[in-house]
Order: sequence, then C-alpha cells, then structure tokens
Amino acid sequence: MTATSVGPVADLTPEHAATLQRALTAIVDRGYWSAYPESPSPRVYGEAAAPAGAAAFQAYLGEDFPLDQPGTTDRVATESSPYGIELGIRYPHGDPDALVAAALAALPGWRDAGPAMRAEVCLRILDRLHEHIFELANAVQYTTGQAFVMAFQAGGAHALDRALESLAYAYAEQTRHPGAADWEKPAGRADSLRMRKTFHVVPRGVALVIACNTFPTWNSYPGLFASLGTGNPVIVKPHPGAVLPLAITVRYAREVLAEAGFDANLVALAAQAPGEGLASVLAQRPEVRVIDFTGSTGYGQWLENNARQAAVFTEKAGVNTVIVDSTADFAGMCRNLAFSLTLYSGQMCTTPQNILVPRDGIDTDLGHKSLAEVAAGIAGAVGALTADPARAVELTGAVVNDSVVPRIEAARERGEVLLDSHPVRHPGHPAAVVRTPLIVGVDAAAQDVFGREWFGPIAFLVSTGTTAESLALFRRTVGAAGALTASVYSTDEAVLAEAERAAIEVGVHLSQNLTGGVFVNQSAAFSDFHGTGANPAANAALTDGAYVASRFRIVQSRRHS
Amino acid sequence: MTATSVGPVADLTPEHAATLQRALTAIVDRGYWSAYPESPSPRVYGEAAAPAGAAAFQAYLGEDFPLDQPGTTDRVATESSPYGIELGIRYPHGDPDALVAAALAALPGWRDAGPAMRAEVCLRILDRLHEHIFELANAVQYTTGQAFVMAFQAGGAHALDRALESLAYAYAEQTRHPGAADWEKPAGRADSLRMRKTFHVVPRGVALVIACNTFPTWNSYPGLFASLGTGNPVIVKPHPGAVLPLAITVRYAREVLAEAGFDANLVALAAQAPGEGLASVLAQRPEVRVIDFTGSTGYGQWLENNARQAAVFTEKAGVNTVIVDSTADFAGMCRNLAFSLTLYSGQMCTTPQNILVPRDGIDTDLGHKSLAEVAAGIAGAVGALTADPARAVELTGAVVNDSVVPRIEAARERGEVLLDSHPVRHPGHPAAVVRTPLIVGVDAAAQDVFGREWFGPIAFLVSTGTTAESLALFRRTVGAAGALTASVYSTDEAVLAEAERAAIEVGVHLSQNLTGGVFVNQSAAFSDFHGTGANPAANAALTDGAYVASRFRIVQSRRHS
Repeated sequence: MTATSVGPVADLTPEHAATLQRALTAIVDRGYWSAYPESPSPRVYGEAAAPAGAAAFQAYLGEDFPLDQPGTTDRVATESSPYGIELGIRYPHGDPDALVAAALAALPGWRDAGPAMRAEVCLRILDRLHEHIFELANAVQYTTGQAFVMAFQAGGAHALDRALESLAYAYAEQTRHPGAADWEKPAGRADSLRMRKTFHVVPRGVALVIACNTFPTWNSYPGLFASLGTGNPVIVKPHPGAVLPLAITVRYAREVLAEAGFDANLVALAAQAPGEGLASVLAQRPEVRVIDFTGSTGYGQWLENNARQAAVFTEKAGVNTVIVDSTADFAGMCRNLAFSLTLYSGQMCTTPQNILVPRDGIDTDLGHKSLAEVAAGIAGAVGALTADPARAVELTGAVVNDSVVPRIEAARERGEVLLDSHPVRHPGHPAAVVRTPLIVGVDAAAQDVFGREWFGPIAFLVSTGTTAESLALFRRTVGAAGALTASVYSTDEAVLAEAERAAIEVGVHLSQNLTGGVFVNQSAAFSDFHGTGANPAANAALTDGAYVASRFRIVQSRRHS
Repeated sequence: MTATSVGPVADLTPEHAATLQRALTAIVDRGYWSAYPESPSPRVYGEAAAPAGAAAFQAYLGEDFPLDQPGTTDRVATESSPYGIELGIRYPHGDPDALVAAALAALPGWRDAGPAMRAEVCLRILDRLHEHIFELANAVQYTTGQAFVMAFQAGGAHALDRALESLAYAYAEQTRHPGAADWEKPAGRADSLRMRKTFHVVPRGVALVIACNTFPTWNSYPGLFASLGTGNPVIVKPHPGAVLPLAITVRYAREVLAEAGFDANLVALAAQAPGEGLASVLAQRPEVRVIDFTGSTGYGQWLENNARQAAVFTEKAGVNTVIVDSTADFAGMCRNLAFSLTLYSGQMCTTPQNILVPRDGIDTDLGHKSLAEVAAGIAGAVGALTADPARAVELTGAVVNDSVVPRIEAARERGEVLLDSHPVRHPGHPAAVVRTPLIVGVDAAAQDVFGREWFGPIAFLVSTGTTAESLALFRRTVGAAGALTASVYSTDEAVLAEAERAAIEVGVHLSQNLTGGVFVNQSAAFSDFHGTGANPAANAALTDGAYVASRFRIVQSRRHS
C-alpha cells in the first residue's frame, strides 16, 4: 500500500539530488543514517580544519559581526561566555519593520522558484555551514557552555543532520502532489470534460525562529529549514546569550542565497537589545505566519495564546522521568544514568530529572538493592565520571547562566541530599562555573517539588511504594507537566509493556533498559523523533509530516484543455 | 525523487486494499477518479434502490430515530424541511459528559487497532453508507432544500468520494513511517550500537465535527473520516436544521463498528435542543482535541479563539469573485455564470457573489459588449434556466431557511436591480420557498456592500474602471474577507497570468474561462482542492497532508536489540 510522489529534479545538482534522495529514504526507513560526520577528528576533517575554525571564531571577538542587513541602525553586544572569555561581538540591530518588509519583498521570487530549486539552495547552505563546522562548534561552545566535542556534534553535525531531515520532509510534503494534472471526466455520450489543473505551493508568509541559549543551532535548524524549504523567508531571533552560532548561520545562508541569485533577505538575524522584547514584537506582526520556538513554558504558552495569526511550533519545559523497577545490569544502569545526568550539566531539554524507585529497593543482577544502594550506585557512577576535573569538564561543560547555581542551592533544601553538587575548576577556563549533578531524595508525595522542571544538574530520586505507583506517578506528572523523554529499567516484560502503554497514553517517547552507549537524552536524526506534540512539553515533534505540512498551502488554477 | 512508504495490508480485505490503493494513487495523481457513481439512474443502482431509499426516509418521519447512545435522557426534534413537509424526527439528546466519556473509553481499542484496520473498518462504513445512498439523498434533500439529483450527488456520491479521499490521506500519513525500525550505528572498532525502535500512531483525543445546514454530509465527511481514520473517536454535532443525514451516517457507522468488534461509541451524534449551545460546550471540553467546523465566520473565529486545546479546522464565509475581462464565448460565459448563480439558489459556499466588469464593457466573440449587455446576457441566461418552474426547481432547490428572503430584500436596496429575484412555485412541493437569483449593480466604490458575504441567491455586478482595477479590487476584497472560489474570463493570456498571480497572492483557487460543463462552484474529489487555508474563508483545505497530519502524533519506544 504505497503513496508515491515524484518531484522535479532538474533544479538539483546530481550530488544534491543523491543527498536529498538518501534523506528521503532515511525519513521513511527511520534507520541509522547521518550525512555529516560527527567526529571532529583530523582523520575525518583534515589537520587544518580545527585551527581554521578556531581562528575564524577568534576573529569575530570584539568586532562588528559582518552582516549587512536592512534597517540596521546600531549594534548590540549581549553575550557573556559561560567560559568567562570576553566575546564582545557587536551584531546589527535596528528596525524590525525593515526586516519584515525586506522578508516580504524577498518572498515572491523564492516562492516561484519551486520546491526543487529551494531544496538545492538549502542544500548548498548546509554545505557551506558544514565547511564552517569548526567555526560553528567554537561559537556554540563559547556561548552555551557546552564542551567542545558536544558543541561540535550537537551544535554542528547533528544540527546539520536535523536540518537535512527537516528539509527532506519539506520537500516530500511539497511534492506529494504534482505541479499540474490533467483531469478528464467521462460524460456519457457527450465529449468528456477535460481540465488542466496547476497546483502552486504557496508559503504562509514570513517565518520567525526564536532560539534558545543552550542549543542555538540544534533546536532552531529544523524550523529554519522547514520554513525556508517551503518558501517562507525566515527571521532568526537568537537568544541574547547565544547570538554568534546563529549570526554565523545567517551570514552563510545569506551568502549562498545571493550567490544563487536570490534575495539575501530571505534569511535575516534579529538580535535584540537588552530588555527589548523583540521576539514578542515580531511574533505579533500580521506578516509573520509561522513561528518556531524553544524555551520556557511560560513564553511558549504566551506565543501560543498571542501569536494567533501564525502556526506556532513550541518546545517548552517538562519533567523527564526514569522508572526504575529492576535491572539485569546494575552497574550499566548506574553508569548510563550518571552519564545522562552529568552531560552538559543536566542542561539538556532531554536530561532526566525524576528517577522513580520503589522505597523497598529493586532486584538486580547483583542481588536486591535498597533504595539507598540505588542512590549510592548512581552517585558513585557520577563520582567516577567527575573525579578528574580535566575529564569531568569534557562532559559537564560549564553552567550556561547565573540562574543555575541558585537553583541547585534551592533544590538542596527540598529533600535529602543524596549526592551533592560540587564545583569543578576548569583546567583550561578557570573563570568557568562548573557544577556536578545534585541528587535529592524526596517522597512520592512531594509532587509540588518534582512536578515541575528544575533546569540544571538537578535530579530527584523519588521513592514510591511500588513500580505500579511509579507508573501512576509517571502518568500523573508527565500528563500534567509534560516531558521530552522517559525511560524505564525492568527485567519484567510486563512492566516494560505497561511502561510503554503509559508512555503512549501520556504521549512521551520511551527508552527501555539503556545500559550501554545510547543515552536517553540523545536522539538521532532521521530515526528518533524529538518531542511528540502529545504532551505539554511540546506542541509538535521534530520532525514529521505535521511539522512541515502546514508551513505552506496549495493554490490551484484550472482551465479547460 | 521519491518518498515511499509501505503499510501493513493484512487487515484489509483484497477488495478494500484495492480501493485504498486506487485512492492513494488518485491523491497523488490528482487526475479524475471517483469511487461512487454519481448518477442516480436505475441503470447504475437498479430499479429498487430509489424507492427503497425513499421508503427508508419516509419511515423515519415522525418517529424516534433508531440510535442507542450513552447518556440519552430525552429526544429533540428541531428540523423543519425547506420543502414544507413535516419531518418530526426525534433524535436522542442528553448528557454531553456521557458522550465524551464514552468516546474516551472507546479510544484505546481503536488506537491499538492501527492504521490498516481502521482503514478497513472505515471503508466498510463507506460501503454501508453507499448501500443507503438513496436514503441519504432523501435526507439531504428534505433537510437542506437541495434538489434531488444534487442531494444524491453532492450529499451522497461526492461526499463519499471526499470521505475516501480524506481516509486515503489519513492512511498515507500514518504509514509514511514504518511501525518499527532497526537502527545500527557504527561505533568504530567497538561493536556497533543496535536499537529496535517502535513507532506508535497515537490519536489526539476526542474529535468533534460541527456540521452546517446546507451540506451536512459533503462538508463533514472529510473531517469525520480524517479523524476516525487516525484513531480519534468522533462526536458529530449536526446543524439543528439538518440532523437526519448525519443521524443516518452515525447510525450506520455505529452498526459497522460494532459488527467489526469495536466500540460503537467511536461515532456518536450530539443533536442539540434549541438554544442549547451544545457545540460550544463540547468544543471547550479538554478531551476534545480536534474540531472540524463549517459555518459562519463569527462562530468559526470563536472556535479558533476559544477551543485552544484543539486543532481547529474551519470553513467560513467569503466573497467568491469573478473577474470578467473578455471572452471568446459570450453565450457560454453567460450560461456558465447563470448556472453557477442558480444552482441551489446560490446557497453554496462556492457560489460566485461578486462579478467584476469594466464599466466600459468587454470584448467578446460577439463584438464589444457594454456593461448593460453583460448584465443582460447573464440575466437572460438565468431567465432561460428558470423560465419553466418544473425545470427551475431541479436547479434551485428550495431556500434553506427564513434568513434568505429578507437578505434578498435587503440586497435589492443596495444598488441597481439588474435582475430581480422572483418566487417560483414548486410543482411537487407548493409549500417550498423557491427564489431565482438577484443581480444588483454596484460601483467598485461600494465595498461596504459587496465586501462581505450575502448568503443566498444574491450577486453583485461590480463596475470597475478597468480589468487592472478589477484585479486590485479582487486582491483587496478577497484578501480581507476571503473566498473559496475565484474565476476569471479573458482572451488575453497576460490577464489570465496576472489573475493567477493575484489568486496565488491572496490564496484562492482560480478557474479560468469556464464556459462549458464545469462550474466554479463545483470541486471534484481526488483532484480539486476545496479551500486553501491561505485566506480568511478557511484555515485549511479539504483535503491535503496538512488536513490530516496533525490529527495524530507518533510516540516511539526504543530498546537495545
């Protein structure tokens, strides 16, 4: 049972046609595939790439960022690096009316170029960004506090993969119908009725991407390329703390667009002055018809409620949850959880927060383990990962902003400290604030504590009566506050099945018995969906048909033939 | 460049698999196809079908409608036939909480059945409805005022085609990803990482379909089958004036669901008592997550603004517009327009309202025609269609409700009456109110008059300075008030191209130079899109990817393999 569609390929180079076809296959197979190598090794990228990227990054520091946009009246410098280095990069700033007007003026030519030409140009943008992946990785590292390898992978290769995935969906969706069709209706003895019908793909309008501080590229590339690929000019509004990765993105996108003969204003940067509220100004413009947002629940809901003229895609906060019932690999479970808690100081939207464990303990391959022993097992594994500062910081990175440490302090007061968070001196960046994970023990009754998100390296070990109570609590808390990830550990297939059923009911992706090299906070482009749209943490998934289908409309024209 | 997907077919009978495959091909080709013969001829349906359908309809009159639903506390009879016959059918009425609770209880089994089984059961429902097409046609005729043939076609065969089209999109969308995938990521010299991923299609929740008086089946079947096909239980809230066609639909749907071993409460009827406001009660229930609505702009906007927990698909009012520049077939143009204005007394959401003509007249195959001659040409063609009452009523049907005749009277006062509306005595139903089209001449400046919808057999001949001014007026009025259809008459390819460009910009489907047997107010399932979602008259199209993609979500579960 197959629905096929064929689009024009003449506008694509053979190489890009092959890449797009492979991506189209990948989004259907959902098996493993990646277009952009995730290893920053010189064996992959050559000896020159890393130093060149670092030098390109350094060259931006303290300078006017090279971006010539309409309506620029002054410059803003709003970033402060979690690594304590001086950034001082000055971005163009000015009149949002001019940005919107320029985007609208750029729309018709891009709309009329059609899906295949847009895919070709977007693929060239991805090529150009990939050429500058080390530059991007440095920008991500020093604005978000991610460690370098993570910044290279999540902020570079994986972000590009997600962009390509999104572009493939956009292309598939636009070409599921032909550009034109001949319709011939039999009319009995009379001549049949014959019509030629033309189907135009029409973008919704101007698109706005509102990015976050922690994953400026990974979280915004899907929306950016889904909107651009479907014909909408895109205004990128970066988080004031992480402008550079998107300024670089916009720079190269504009470069490629202009080279291809299109209006560079199809992609523009809207950096804001402190306290300006530029996102809200842009989000309520009638011309803005698509919005992608990653950030707080409060602001996401504000957008959903107030940007009524637009299709609004939001990823917000949630309470990612682990249900621990039993395990056949206690050490592996503890190591896996410890890694997930430690990675980027728990500052991922996918980091587990609530670990639900029966208060009588669990059965494991090492015998029955009490609740205290489970806590100690995870704490020990965190300790092993963070004992050596030089190794620790390659996992933790640095704390992204000033709100995190006070939150750790507040969380310490809300239960029993099972593993305390401690500062780590970053060998390379002594000014960086680095903190190891905090684990606080609380009772299942303390839902006022763990029933909301505590952003940062903060986890709660929640003691429940039984796994059945854990599952009920999981349904209740995730149903109310949402989650981007959930995981379960059990040796009992019935428990796994019930956890899967609960995950389906509350609409959250589930990982089962992760004890090796796959972590609940990592999702793989082309295979794992990120978010579901089925719980309060996100109103859409990255990336599926629903993520792209309403970014354009079809307008038909028909005449007799 | 192809994205293919293969779904399980084991749940489908060979016959239904073939029907579905043909429909899946049709929605990709967008050429001519129909699954349900539109001719009510005995040569197609047999001699017995028509009398049996009429008898089935008659048997409902004055009786309790046979529908056993949860929460029924009493009965309501709200219909009054435009043909003046006594209907007096009493529908179950009662507790909306019980309907919602029953729908929710029915959800898990239907969700777990999967896309192919749902398609199979929905196809059986369509078969059952098709077996009762004459019964449906009588119900549509006597509640909406449509003439019989139109009720049979639009309310029967074409509605079933649109349902199947929608079901095909729903199936294609749910199966564009596999149910499960194996993911194997190379890990250098170490063993590769292997995961088994399961992708569950999860419905959004309870779906609500709010139907209209004039096209109770045609306008609600796409939403009904899109929602049901994607796993959502559906509550059908009929217009109080046209309950029977949907009561019949719900009756047979419940019958088929129960026969297939599913909960009959997956489809329920929510008939309302006068003034009850049941649609608003249901639309704001948190369990209701998808809403399809056809009706007034005011109520559609209320739903969009207030049913924030739901994906809301609305079709509202608009100002359908004809741009007359020139023609190579003056008589054909006049006949075609006259037919469109007369068909079902102009009570179609697709009927043209505003006919824009340069005040200096137009060039035609019969020489230059003044504005008055154009008006006379159309008026004459209407006259020819409506001169014989017996023939006239087979086109006009009857006026659907009491609001139409006063609106005709009001419109007469707003300009020069170029063709007056007159009553026609229906030979078979003397109590029916039948009115021929009114054409009122107004100037382009009178936008306060023609810039909004005048529902009924009311058209405005709007005199403009030039075709360029017509195009500007078209952009302005359709941009502001929306439209479901637009058409243009011109012998000049440049004008046609400019009209197409304007249609693309304001987001409305365009028909060019219709002079024969295709009319602007008719759209063909599987080929023509109905509505665009790109102008104020509708926020979605029937039916495309965007119409189905957000009716479900994907929840994945993964484990090592």
